[in-house]
Amino acid sequence: MDERLKKQLDFILEIDKEKNIFRQTHLSGRGRNENDAEHAWHMAIMAYLLQEYANEPVDVTRVMLMCLIHDVVEIDAGDTYAYDTEGLKTQKAREDAAKERIYSLLPDDQKQALQSIFDEFEQNSTPEARFAHAMDNLQPLLLNDSNDGGDWREHQVTAAQVYGRQSKTAEGSQKLYEITDELLQKHIKKGNLRP
Amino acid sequence: MDERLKKQLDFILEIDKEKNIFRQTHLSGRGRNENDAEHAWHMAIMAYLLQEYANEPVDVTRVMLMCLIHDVVEIDAGDTYAYDTEGLKTQKAREDAAKERIYSLLPDDQKQALQSIFDEFEQNSTPEARFAHAMDNLQPLLLNDSNDGGDWREHQVTAAQVYGRQSKTAEGSQKLYEITDELLQKHIKKGNLRP
Repeated sequence: MDERLKKQLDFILEIDKEKNIFRQTHLSGRGRNENDAEHAWHMAIMAYLLQEYANEPVDVTRVMLMCLIHDVVEIDAGDTYAYDTEGLKTQKAREDAAKERIYSLLPDDQKQALQSIFDEFEQNSTPEARFAHAMDNLQPLLLNDSNDGGDWREHQVTAAQVYGRQSKTAEGSQKLYEITDELLQKHIKKGNLRP
Repeated sequence: MDERLKKQLDFILEIDKEKNIFRQTHLSGRGRNENDAEHAWHMAIMAYLLQEYANEPVDVTRVMLMCLIHDVVEIDAGDTYAYDTEGLKTQKAREDAAKERIYSLLPDDQKQALQSIFDEFEQNSTPEARFAHAMDNLQPLLLNDSNDGGDWREHQVTAAQVYGRQSKTAEGSQKLYEITDELLQKHIKKGNLRP
């Protein structure tokens, strides 16, 4: 096997481990915890179906790629829960080290390409990145809503915490933020989110 | 919420169930069975990284979409193991019914678009569909190879059965079929595939 293909297949096998990185979100039907690969798959399909709601025109292929690969770094760095204050302090350093190790398995041109997609997502400064972040926020919100806010109740999350994160959805999609706000107001009224 | 967005979100929540459809393939590291959403995620990233090996130029966005949605029908129809002779007889009818029910949750234009992508994959008559099928074959092969052919041994699969399926990879990618052949010959020699 030539060296280039061997590197590509090594990377492909390595990212299989993302299926073992579990998140705090539970599957609909009060199911088990979701893993990063499932979350990424769901986000990519959402990006395709909901692209008409992006605030600015987006290259949907690039958004889908961001969705698919944005959590590869968690193979080494682990999942950091959105409301884990301590974990969030070290998240960047852990993910930077993971980014270097894992993407270096690829041939150099593809390493650069995927790191650039990941960096763009992290920097959140393009329409594509902002829309991908809207998917990253909306996907667990829809599952959690279907489970009557169980993930928030379990972690005693406050409305202010959720708004702090979910308000960024408006940067990618005003329309999807309106739905987000509707859902959050419902869960505040139901007592699923602490005031 | 307007009717169009409501339909889109209903579909998005419905396909969450794909994460509960388990396949015969096991994750690397002799892990648990893989589910359809994980398999689809893995295939979509592979399609992007390996597109240079497609026999003909492909629209990689369309290939990725095929990879992402090709197993949605299994939410109703269940997973049919590639070497389950009885199951294969009824697979088409079960999947046709599922295709109608599940995609009908979407607004009509998106129902047509996704059904068309699914039909193209099934008919396997475009370069995109042939390359997506190569991914559908290669992805579990890589996992099974990493597990020393455990999935074949468990089901006492023969070399002829595996070649019957995997030889279709050559229609999408001659280069990836060469690797497939190399791996299969190794597993025949090791006794992991019955003669």
